[in-house]
Amino acid sequence: MKITEMRVTPIAVTDPPLRNSVGIHAPYALRTIVELIDDHRVTGVSEVPGDLDTTQALTEAREYVVNADPYHTTRLLSVLADTFGSRGTVDRGSNPWDRRTHVHVASAVEGACLDLVGKTIGRPLCDLLGGAVRTRIPFASYLFFKPEGAGGAWGYGTDPRAVGWPAARQRAALTPEDIVRQARAMTDAFGFQAHKLKGGVLDPDVEVRTVLALREAFGPEIPLRIDPNGVWSVETAVACGKRLKGVLEYYEDPVRGQENMAIVGKALGIPMATNMYTTSFGDIPRSIELGAESIILSDHHYWGGFRASLDLAAVCRVFGRGLSMHSNSHLGISLMAMAHLAATVPNLDYSLDTHYPWQSEEIIVGGRIEFDGGAVRITNAPGLGVELDRAALARLHENYRMCGLTHRDDVAEMKKLDPMWEARLTRW
Amino acid sequence: MKITEMRVTPIAVTDPPLRNSVGIHAPYALRTIVELIDDHRVTGVSEVPGDLDTTQALTEAREYVVNADPYHTTRLLSVLADTFGSRGTVDRGSNPWDRRTHVHVASAVEGACLDLVGKTIGRPLCDLLGGAVRTRIPFASYLFFKPEGAGGAWGYGTDPRAVGWPAARQRAALTPEDIVRQARAMTDAFGFQAHKLKGGVLDPDVEVRTVLALREAFGPEIPLRIDPNGVWSVETAVACGKRLKGVLEYYEDPVRGQENMAIVGKALGIPMATNMYTTSFGDIPRSIELGAESIILSDHHYWGGFRASLDLAAVCRVFGRGLSMHSNSHLGISLMAMAHLAATVPNLDYSLDTHYPWQSEEIIVGGRIEFDGGAVRITNAPGLGVELDRAALARLHENYRMCGLTHRDDVAEMKKLDPMWEARLTRW
Repeated sequence: MKITEMRVTPIAVTDPPLRNSVGIHAPYALRTIVELIDDHRVTGVSEVPGDLDTTQALTEAREYVVNADPYHTTRLLSVLADTFGSRGTVDRGSNPWDRRTHVHVASAVEGACLDLVGKTIGRPLCDLLGGAVRTRIPFASYLFFKPEGAGGAWGYGTDPRAVGWPAARQRAALTPEDIVRQARAMTDAFGFQAHKLKGGVLDPDVEVRTVLALREAFGPEIPLRIDPNGVWSVETAVACGKRLKGVLEYYEDPVRGQENMAIVGKALGIPMATNMYTTSFGDIPRSIELGAESIILSDHHYWGGFRASLDLAAVCRVFGRGLSMHSNSHLGISLMAMAHLAATVPNLDYSLDTHYPWQSEEIIVGGRIEFDGGAVRITNAPGLGVELDRAALARLHENYRMCGLTHRDDVAEMKKLDPMWEARLTRW
Repeated sequence: MKITEMRVTPIAVTDPPLRNSVGIHAPYALRTIVELIDDHRVTGVSEVPGDLDTTQALTEAREYVVNADPYHTTRLLSVLADTFGSRGTVDRGSNPWDRRTHVHVASAVEGACLDLVGKTIGRPLCDLLGGAVRTRIPFASYLFFKPEGAGGAWGYGTDPRAVGWPAARQRAALTPEDIVRQARAMTDAFGFQAHKLKGGVLDPDVEVRTVLALREAFGPEIPLRIDPNGVWSVETAVACGKRLKGVLEYYEDPVRGQENMAIVGKALGIPMATNMYTTSFGDIPRSIELGAESIILSDHHYWGGFRASLDLAAVCRVFGRGLSMHSNSHLGISLMAMAHLAATVPNLDYSLDTHYPWQSEEIIVGGRIEFDGGAVRITNAPGLGVELDRAALARLHENYRMCGLTHRDDVAEMKKLDPMWEARLTRW
């Protein structure tokens, strides 16, 4: 059994103008789709964030991947790490997203290998990792402040034909009340039983009031989180945290850096979570030493694949850290990959993040994946349980060619709205 | 695919009178063989230390294992941990061997499941864990002080027909010169390129001189280790360590407890290794905090299986700990399981321990496994690459029934030679 062909297809996915600490989402989110085809004409697929550097590295990776045995991922990923380990931004950096090339390359290659193996032996991907400990994977809503706009060709305009959540998705959300309305519309459509607010956008007082409004609207049974992406000062984070104590399920990256996270956590005594400051295995020893956070948000795209994510889960078990899961704008291949990984991790104790409701397109046969009560179900379908819709892939690849975007740059997008905009490491 | 039958067969394997810190090996080493048969009549096998409690627990485990899917090991092992987690000695204890029931149960069940899956899909077991990063697995010799004796029915007598290593294996080894002779005979037969001396038996001065004699005989290219199983005081260990600095590849458990290990390591500045004091995931945080050792000897029998051992390997990578592998008296199923695990772990940087040369019997088709230059080769044969020889299994089960042993008890065996013998926590 060997890989005979590797296809790397960058795509652009319609994405609404969602705000975050450094700016705003471009009208398209970039993703890269990898297909590995073996000598029995079975195809495995994966999806990763579509930075041009990642796409370029994946294209170069063909040299190592073609002729490899898809079972032999440890050796293959080691070669890829040696080859691409220093590409892109080596550190996780100061952005809400990840610019390290090699972790994305590893994730894309391992993911497609395991999907290929699963499809070959007729077993769901999670069975290659010890099997599912749960088959119903709960996700949280991901609430965003945003101006009006549908993204894609609509830009800051809206599609007047949209109804239900697709209509609500287009609306501006600039106040606590708007976010509660957004949460209701999203919950009606997806059934989420937990809410996460992307913070670091408006004045912290508004954001605290937004969380309190969500609590008021949904009651204490629905866990709430806020993620200011590190732009609050320690003082602001402590002051806001005091108002949110007993309300937050966890407090995600309110401040920049492991040291500050530890200070805020100790001052407040509430669970601190990160996907920005403990984001690689190299960050773990210092995190443990400092007690920087009590929950780590894993992400197989950022941690270098499924098995690396299981390594992280093991570290979290050993040191009594909780585990949740991070998301970026994504389609169904990533969604099912996240779900299969989550299915295998006993200590994944929180509902997962997902941007999926904000996307409207799909590249898999059957179209958009259904949520049931906020959860995705793992079935016995082989591999990830999805097949590429080649016509849809071609359409989104054409989007990519037309849109002209090559890298995610939320700062540049924001400057189009506000030429004086600057990203700041600490804003409040 | 489901497991329809689980066979649990205790066996007794001829074992020579090997000395250690608490006493001496009985004439038979006890092992338990597990066979899992699925609804397609494929059989997976595993081998674990054969304490009666483990055998009993495995027999009870049938209730959970039969009807399970052999891919679903994470869920199954979680149930088994809940059921048997408090059986046996919960702590690793003060013996050179492990009395925790649940880790052996987990290892036996997961091992046989993965062998079964590998045989079903026609892939070597290591391919279920990410594939081999090496196919040649180097082992070290394991040198023992011992009285004359072949073990088994020969007891302290010897088989006069034996030639080569089987003859040398019978001879007494009570001096540095004897151990050098033992090492030469074992190397001639197996080709080992590293030597490990079981210490904690004779006066530490004799043991230090033994290591120095091995260095003199084999030269600086052959790594040397000594393992006094924790019966040296800190003062003795430091004094001996000073004489062995630059000679030892690592210093294994000279003293009792993580705290003392850390003290000795800091005093000497030589690599400290353990398989006695950091032996479960619960021990890891304190080990990291103290810097108790720089190398952990894994053992899939003791850490609860293959995937748990990969978790340990990940922890070692994250915290810059080295990884080696521990052994007990064993047959070819355990040998190949160790080799398959070692094949998949990039950071298994040392040749593995093995008692295999001390055993003479086998229960696998084709008989004893060949070593080539001290190494075992991983092939593409499905699963562990071995099949049970049912006639041999029946013979060794009959040994078990006849010998009357139910638990390993090296202290009781030693009392037969020396009624005044007592195990001591610290002897020198």
